[in-house]
Amino acid sequence: MKEKLIKISISLFGQNGFTETSIQDIVEALGVTKGTFYYYFKSKEELLMEIHLRYIEDLLKGQNEIVSKESTQEQKLFEMVYMLMQHIEGHGQSARVFFREMQHLNEAHLEDIFKKSDAFKDNMKKVIEDGIKKKEFRQDLHANIVTLAILGAVNWSYHWFNPLGELSDHAVSKIYIDLMLNGLKASK
Amino acid sequence: MKEKLIKISISLFGQNGFTETSIQDIVEALGVTKGTFYYYFKSKEELLMEIHLRYIEDLLKGQNEIVSKESTQEQKLFEMVYMLMQHIEGHGQSARVFFREMQHLNEAHLEDIFKKSDAFKDNMKKVIEDGIKKKEFRQDLHANIVTLAILGAVNWSYHWFNPLGELSDHAVSKIYIDLMLNGLKASK
Repeated sequence: MKEKLIKISISLFGQNGFTETSIQDIVEALGVTKGTFYYYFKSKEELLMEIHLRYIEDLLKGQNEIVSKESTQEQKLFEMVYMLMQHIEGHGQSARVFFREMQHLNEAHLEDIFKKSDAFKDNMKKVIEDGIKKKEFRQDLHANIVTLAILGAVNWSYHWFNPLGELSDHAVSKIYIDLMLNGLKASK
Repeated sequence: MKEKLIKISISLFGQNGFTETSIQDIVEALGVTKGTFYYYFKSKEELLMEIHLRYIEDLLKGQNEIVSKESTQEQKLFEMVYMLMQHIEGHGQSARVFFREMQHLNEAHLEDIFKKSDAFKDNMKKVIEDGIKKKEFRQDLHANIVTLAILGAVNWSYHWFNPLGELSDHAVSKIYIDLMLNGLKASK
């Protein structure tokens, strides 16, 4: 039941917004009582925090697996981009709720989510820094801005990515990485 | 007075959210009456639409000027990225309101904003397609995804860009364009 409550809430928050969705709307959509809701969550905010925590912790877990592999930094970067795109593809509304409704978390919760998001960013930055150290990547680019550019391009795709569209999450990830690594300019 | 109402609303919507901000909050912050508000706007939604229209129309105007210049596609792309970054720098809360509160526009208004946003994207895509045709850019990249990657990286920066930080909007734009055009990979 907890899973069902979370799933329907992601869909309602994604479609109608967190503020616009009441606990009544959530329980009605499942045909259960408010008592059922309060058995699992103290408040709507606590439920929102659970959605946020799952989203970011899942990504951090996947990222740790990628980091611990023996592979080039390019390969690690690709796998991180692909994982993020798969998340957006498979959990489109989760991504929307994660980024758009963050403002409705209380301060302590927000701080926790920011800390975990920063950890994700720092792990990606480390891959880029290692690539610079190993001369796999250029020496003259600002690792932090490069990280933010890649994360931005990928995260932004929740605005437009259509799982039923012409290109798969894998195809889009390949194009992203090709662009970021090799650049758009024609070689001389 | 209309300008003042718009300015304070952007700041309140940006800080507290559109739903959480009442017309009462807006007029109180300016020390005027609700009558003043209704003299200029029929509703809070109409005011939100005005904010959205100004944001996107301003960008479209700037983009048209860039497109009509005699310069390389690379230069045009840089100028578009820099214009967007300047917007985020100078109107941080506007960018936040534009992207986050779009869901609160009514359907007809939303359609109008989507049409204008698409026009902006299409103009940028045209620059990339022209660069491909003129062999300034690579022949084997997907112009649409490249456009979305660049737009995504830039638009995302409203989440983190700090006008008081170490790097200016100009410096960040330069790094973005260098990354997107030349790539992260060390040359062989």
